[in-house]
Amino acid sequence: MKIEYTLLKEEKNTSARLGNIKTKYGTFETPMFMPVGTEATVKTLSVEEIKDVHAGIILSNTYHLWLRPGEDVIDHAGGLHEFMHYNGPILTDSGGFQVFSLAKPKDITEEGVLFKNHINGDKLFLTPEKSIEIQNKLDSDIAMSFDECPPASATYEYLKQSIERTVRWAKRGKLVHKNENQMLFGIVQGGPYEDLRKWSAEETVKIGFDGYSIGGVANDHESKEDMYKAFEFSTKYLPKNKLRYAMGIGEPIDIIEGVIRGIDLFDCVSPTRLARHGHALTKYGKINIKNAQYKEDFSTLSLDCDCYTCQSKYSKAYIRHLIVANETLGARLLSIHNIRFLIHLTEEIRLAIKNDSILEYKEQFIKDYYGDKNE
Amino acid sequence: MKIEYTLLKEEKNTSARLGNIKTKYGTFETPMFMPVGTEATVKTLSVEEIKDVHAGIILSNTYHLWLRPGEDVIDHAGGLHEFMHYNGPILTDSGGFQVFSLAKPKDITEEGVLFKNHINGDKLFLTPEKSIEIQNKLDSDIAMSFDECPPASATYEYLKQSIERTVRWAKRGKLVHKNENQMLFGIVQGGPYEDLRKWSAEETVKIGFDGYSIGGVANDHESKEDMYKAFEFSTKYLPKNKLRYAMGIGEPIDIIEGVIRGIDLFDCVSPTRLARHGHALTKYGKINIKNAQYKEDFSTLSLDCDCYTCQSKYSKAYIRHLIVANETLGARLLSIHNIRFLIHLTEEIRLAIKNDSILEYKEQFIKDYYGDKNE
Repeated sequence: MKIEYTLLKEEKNTSARLGNIKTKYGTFETPMFMPVGTEATVKTLSVEEIKDVHAGIILSNTYHLWLRPGEDVIDHAGGLHEFMHYNGPILTDSGGFQVFSLAKPKDITEEGVLFKNHINGDKLFLTPEKSIEIQNKLDSDIAMSFDECPPASATYEYLKQSIERTVRWAKRGKLVHKNENQMLFGIVQGGPYEDLRKWSAEETVKIGFDGYSIGGVANDHESKEDMYKAFEFSTKYLPKNKLRYAMGIGEPIDIIEGVIRGIDLFDCVSPTRLARHGHALTKYGKINIKNAQYKEDFSTLSLDCDCYTCQSKYSKAYIRHLIVANETLGARLLSIHNIRFLIHLTEEIRLAIKNDSILEYKEQFIKDYYGDKNE
Repeated sequence: MKIEYTLLKEEKNTSARLGNIKTKYGTFETPMFMPVGTEATVKTLSVEEIKDVHAGIILSNTYHLWLRPGEDVIDHAGGLHEFMHYNGPILTDSGGFQVFSLAKPKDITEEGVLFKNHINGDKLFLTPEKSIEIQNKLDSDIAMSFDECPPASATYEYLKQSIERTVRWAKRGKLVHKNENQMLFGIVQGGPYEDLRKWSAEETVKIGFDGYSIGGVANDHESKEDMYKAFEFSTKYLPKNKLRYAMGIGEPIDIIEGVIRGIDLFDCVSPTRLARHGHALTKYGKINIKNAQYKEDFSTLSLDCDCYTCQSKYSKAYIRHLIVANETLGARLLSIHNIRFLIHLTEEIRLAIKNDSILEYKEQFIKDYYGDKNE
């Protein structure tokens, strides 16, 4: 069964949309935040804990799984769901972002990208076809086209050539896409320039995909304004009946602004990364649990949170102790809490869309979260 | 309510004993293996997972908690159970072993031990009174007297002086012990020498404790024979109606040999430490999950294991991938499995005691576990 998207409602005052996605692993609503399971595991969480934070879908990384354990091992296990023992929907990225950020490309040609394996230094070559073939084997529910991810510093001229090549790569990837259970998304790039985003979106839509991702929005942005423009200049030229996914976005206000500009899916490593560094997301902003003020604070992270960590009454003082002592239970308790926080945020967003009150919701959220209480 | 020990049965052919311990946190049977929760957390496990491996009691380390977060923080939380959110029985050690192994003593006097804090290098002084005061505040269910832990290389003459001092320290500790809910154990030392063990046991019993620990058996032993002698030369001179605990013992055969010589409680960091290094304990010996042969082994760690990891059907191939990728879920899945393995071992041991068949059990266990299948 192929995964199916239905647009349920558009908000009255903005481009925010409510939708649902039906998969053989169950149905979930959008907008939705996706926790990241880079190495076929959402860092520190068991599969039951992933379900318990009400994750509709998780993301896993093609580049990492290609290198280790290898797509064939996962194929022989019966696909990524079987391998990691997770019976919920999974989206895989194309490996493009990692090749350009983590591995540092040695050479970008029309054929593909030559780069160094970041684990052992081996030279590797990734092409649009290879990326799709790997994702076909991983058997994720949603796959991404292989795109170039130019740095934020790229010139207009460079971006123009880059989006043209990304469109050619998207065509090549679609030709070899063979997994009928898997949606395939095209990717819109083009930096902060409306004409480039427009061209990229329209040409990608001409090829025809099950959904569209918006790339080049998460890294090194000079301003939030540019990020929000990139959202807007992309969704504006995308069909309403298809999913839109903003790649690598996890800051609460960016999720809200993305939703307002018509985006349905978000992912980011931030909730687990913040957790490892001892940060907790709360309604009243981000707190650093390592601060001395929490040493004897025996209250929970948040009074109005329904996550395992808060409901089980683990105290700030205990979590602080675990983080300071570098005990993994600390990162786990904070990861569960932080992921649940962002998924709960999308639940509140969906309610606001239903009530046509997303702008009011945004205003109140900013007041609570980014008010002067933030550290 | 003070914790109570009842001797239920002695095995026909050996000194093995079956008993039970009643605490305000429930009743459990002995012999029992105790998982170690050094920093007020059994590494990688939640409190539900500790219960789920059927741990009757866990051990936590006075030295570590004294240094971080400090016994006053834990006292203000309402004691260690409240602080770490664990409503099962807890035993604390005296800090002695850590002072002598981890911190390296600068000076051992009649008064106590001067040593360096292993975290920040500060000079600290630990006395028998201070150790008990800290444990009183931690409010564990079973506390240990502060003893000297001489190295295995110590001469007979040194050991003789050392056990005399340890007895004087035990008296001083008992005098300041004020927590009526807490059992206090004395500690028998004396290396592999029967006359020293005998003197140490008899003098410690004269002071009168709720139970007796056997120290100096876990580290740097020249031979298993010496370890087993130390068990025997200690329990032989201890009262039958009191608990006996062999400190730091976790190798399966050592637990069995300890039980045969009349020991009730064991603890060791080995199941979680082995897990972090990718080792799994199975009926047919220890396996190294990182070995290439497990790369595509999609079977569980063990067919006859009832732990979460095995019952949830996590595969060797997946756990191998997690360990290789340094993902904490891997250490967690193996920790749960390894701890459950040792606790299950004590369950089988108790059954064998009931059936007066501990020697037959030992023979079969050795054949299965230490046969030529072991890596």
